[in-house]
Amino acid sequence: MNADPSPAPRLDPALGAVELTRQLCDIPSVSGDERAIADAVEAVLRERAPHLSVTRDGDTIIARTELGRERRVAIAGHLDTVPINDNLPVRDELDAATGETMIRGRGTVDMKAGVAVQLLLAVELAEPAVDLTWIWYDHEEVASDLSGLGRAMRHHPRLFAADFAILGEPSNGTIEGGCNGTLRARVTMHGRRAHSARSWMGVNAIQRAGALLDRLARYEAERIVVDGLEYREGLNAVRIEGGVAGNVIPDRCSFEVNYRFAPSRSTDEAERVVRDFFSDADEVEIVDLAPGARPGLDAPLARRFVEAVGVEPNAKFGWTDVARFSALGIPAVNFGPGDPLLAHADDERVPVSQIEFTERALRAWLQASEA
Amino acid sequence: MNADPSPAPRLDPALGAVELTRQLCDIPSVSGDERAIADAVEAVLRERAPHLSVTRDGDTIIARTELGRERRVAIAGHLDTVPINDNLPVRDELDAATGETMIRGRGTVDMKAGVAVQLLLAVELAEPAVDLTWIWYDHEEVASDLSGLGRAMRHHPRLFAADFAILGEPSNGTIEGGCNGTLRARVTMHGRRAHSARSWMGVNAIQRAGALLDRLARYEAERIVVDGLEYREGLNAVRIEGGVAGNVIPDRCSFEVNYRFAPSRSTDEAERVVRDFFSDADEVEIVDLAPGARPGLDAPLARRFVEAVGVEPNAKFGWTDVARFSALGIPAVNFGPGDPLLAHADDERVPVSQIEFTERALRAWLQASEA
Repeated sequence: MNADPSPAPRLDPALGAVELTRQLCDIPSVSGDERAIADAVEAVLRERAPHLSVTRDGDTIIARTELGRERRVAIAGHLDTVPINDNLPVRDELDAATGETMIRGRGTVDMKAGVAVQLLLAVELAEPAVDLTWIWYDHEEVASDLSGLGRAMRHHPRLFAADFAILGEPSNGTIEGGCNGTLRARVTMHGRRAHSARSWMGVNAIQRAGALLDRLARYEAERIVVDGLEYREGLNAVRIEGGVAGNVIPDRCSFEVNYRFAPSRSTDEAERVVRDFFSDADEVEIVDLAPGARPGLDAPLARRFVEAVGVEPNAKFGWTDVARFSALGIPAVNFGPGDPLLAHADDERVPVSQIEFTERALRAWLQASEA
Repeated sequence: MNADPSPAPRLDPALGAVELTRQLCDIPSVSGDERAIADAVEAVLRERAPHLSVTRDGDTIIARTELGRERRVAIAGHLDTVPINDNLPVRDELDAATGETMIRGRGTVDMKAGVAVQLLLAVELAEPAVDLTWIWYDHEEVASDLSGLGRAMRHHPRLFAADFAILGEPSNGTIEGGCNGTLRARVTMHGRRAHSARSWMGVNAIQRAGALLDRLARYEAERIVVDGLEYREGLNAVRIEGGVAGNVIPDRCSFEVNYRFAPSRSTDEAERVVRDFFSDADEVEIVDLAPGARPGLDAPLARRFVEAVGVEPNAKFGWTDVARFSALGIPAVNFGPGDPLLAHADDERVPVSQIEFTERALRAWLQASEA
């Protein structure tokens, strides 16, 4: 350990959301290492946002206006990133195709640009048209049960009451509603061991799995419209293992499948789909199951938000924390700068124009009396 | 280490092949640990078989008569066993079904009973009808390139000249001719990674392997008659692996197949069979390839041996060191006590009657002037 630690990183929203994005990215904050960035966010709020009542839970920060408005909107973003891969500090570059200025590096898309817009508006908007609950949280990029958002919701349920929620996950500056659910199952085929020199004495479990995998390859996933948005499902093998030795007929082969299911399906229904599909397997064990979230775009606040931003909403395919708000009965959408296809990519990069668009759209709606 | 080592184990052929089997089994001799048993075998030969000229190569012992006979027969057995699993020392038991006395424990079948018969006859037969080359060797139960037999053949090629060879591998007291060849290949399918929430952006390598595995499950292996014996082939997946993470469409799936092929096929032909079968795979890599051995039962010495033993010969399916003699142009068969299906089994056990039968048959033939 260095006996002379470098000073705590400082964040300055006065320099604008684009510079704030660079500052946030350059504080390393891989899941489990969010202390420094959470400290920096808390310091800005305590110093520059006396209109917010701030609560800290681990490395999650909840900051609320208490203006007695009729409606309350929760706006949330996670502070952590997937591991850095020689892609920090960030640097600016010009996109060759579009000529746009991009900020490139770990976290730019997922989701420091979204956090920058949120933090800037949290400090700036002392008198928003609705009451606001800002939430920045830890441990999003890891196992669901480590989630800082989930933990804070359990510790402080009353702080999370809201009529509508906006997650700053990357959505290319459009609104992505709801999310698919996700189920993981382990499918196992059995056999009987034998020496491979006398293979007819055994039953080959790996080869028995072949018919199931081949059927999976020919499976046509459904497209399901929920509240006006089309959700595309998927059922895929993601891992496989089997075998004893190079001269033994294998008596066991297991593969894991991941089913991404439309938010109109319950978790029970999703499980039934997978069990029916593999009804001829020897074992099907559900190892992970998280419900989706309906887009909730029929809620009045959500409708007005869509109108204010002025873009056509899309379905979100990936699972996001909108599902945690949805589970509390709070309609929630994703709205943030950056292309979700670049999240976790080593060449992750966000267009400056999307940061600026997101900031303008969110500010305008939160100031508008009809929010 | 014990500063007061126990005395070197002693072997006494005068007590008969059955007791000698017990003595040989009770000297632990897992592959790599054959020093003590090789020392004991060498000591017996030097003390009790002055008619043999003994050469030691590592833990392999070659003992030859030099009688100037017209024909020479090589008789070989390996000294090592697969790992002991709480099944030593050996014990006698009655087989419930047949009422036969069995010796049970590690090595009884594979192949200390065969070695006992050989060692007893090596000491006893000072004037056999043919010249004899007795060979006991190390490292048979492990990777082919560690084989003590292969090493000694390279170091002392002239000591291995012979007109016929008998391996004492378990064959239930019958003659098993030749052996199948064996080929191992790694078959790989490629794909394209994508987040499993957008699986349609990727190509699933595990699922692409499904059609190949399903075809393998429906493959009917051939039965091929070689020199009058029927060899049953086999082509089987023995291991499989693939997958990146629970939320990633896998871009690679590899499985290993083991092809056991009749000794009438060359290694080139065996490779062609496998490459043709998987012609639509992305990669087929041959990782191991050993030729089979034709039974060689048309050789005059082999014919007379079959007549003398008086049993109908069968094909050997498993690969054995007969292939090393075959590669030197020496016809070779397997002839030993014990059921090959019990080799390596934890309840490995050999009927006393088969030890006695093998001993009588081999002695009679080696003494007969028409050998």
